[in-house]
Amino acid sequence: MELLKQKIKAEGIVVSDRILKVDSFLNHQIDPVLMQAMGQEFARKFQGEKITKVLTLEASGIAIAIMTALALQVPLIFAKKKRPSTMTTQAYFGRVHSFTKHEDVDIMVSANYLNSSDHVLIIDDFLATGEAARGMIKIVQQSGAVLVGVGIVIEKSFQEGGQYLRQEGIRVESLARIAKLEQGKVYFD
Amino acid sequence: MELLKQKIKAEGIVVSDRILKVDSFLNHQIDPVLMQAMGQEFARKFQGEKITKVLTLEASGIAIAIMTALALQVPLIFAKKKRPSTMTTQAYFGRVHSFTKHEDVDIMVSANYLNSSDHVLIIDDFLATGEAARGMIKIVQQSGAVLVGVGIVIEKSFQEGGQYLRQEGIRVESLARIAKLEQGKVYFD
Repeated sequence: MELLKQKIKAEGIVVSDRILKVDSFLNHQIDPVLMQAMGQEFARKFQGEKITKVLTLEASGIAIAIMTALALQVPLIFAKKKRPSTMTTQAYFGRVHSFTKHEDVDIMVSANYLNSSDHVLIIDDFLATGEAARGMIKIVQQSGAVLVGVGIVIEKSFQEGGQYLRQEGIRVESLARIAKLEQGKVYFD
Repeated sequence: MELLKQKIKAEGIVVSDRILKVDSFLNHQIDPVLMQAMGQEFARKFQGEKITKVLTLEASGIAIAIMTALALQVPLIFAKKKRPSTMTTQAYFGRVHSFTKHEDVDIMVSANYLNSSDHVLIIDDFLATGEAARGMIKIVQQSGAVLVGVGIVIEKSFQEGGQYLRQEGIRVESLARIAKLEQGKVYFD
């Protein structure tokens, strides 16, 4: 998606050869007009597929996922990173390792909102090692729902997550794929 | 907002006389069409005010806040609950006590995205004790920005947060105000 690539070139900060900061429009400050355009782009890419729910992981996936859910006119579910004390129903779980925060987190979705009649599109902001996506896929599998695919804003294709998922036969659509980060520059696939 | 009140009556679960669960459309599963309508309603309520940024707190405020930011055509900033290892710039901080999670959390906004030229609308899903709002207000004050007001989806007006903020002269607009929760029923103001 050309608009996104331009935004990454203009505002992305290459912290290291593995870390790209896009805090000015995606991960801390968020550009709502770009989110809406990207949500519509995901809806276009997956048109023709039956989708009943969009699933993401709190927190930075929520903005792009709600815009995708709006474009598709289906509910969004966001997986929670910790079981809050008010959540007492049966739930599905996954475990995700965060390399930026150096910790394992359990993610969960209440069984009230996902079941075997659902067709789920997973949406997330980044795909690198694939940890978050795999955690969400585990949740979809536990629920018995059909996984339609995974929509990603920025895929770091020099890391193994995307390859791993595609080898499993999962449809992965990324709006920007980064081949490498080198000496402060972003190289797209 | 009548549409929201109907949704609360139909789907809200009164867990106790202090806790209302709205996990089916606001806090876990999210209705994107309702979020869009509510975002437009906040934009209407604050029309005529100069607003340059919307501010919310991760995670469950993000969906309504991005729709408000879209309606206002300004960026959204979400305050983060923990300083990630990739965030190294100067920042503004607040401290928030979560009564549902029984813990204090530090919330922060990078100084890159808020400064004294900004006019900020704070948006959040719930207002009860006012802890989250006060944490965000502290951040706005540190940045030197103008606080335009606070927009809340559901205010529990039987708790002191809204009264406290209004006594400080802060404009608080809530889409639904709950007078009491009793024997499984919701009573609106």
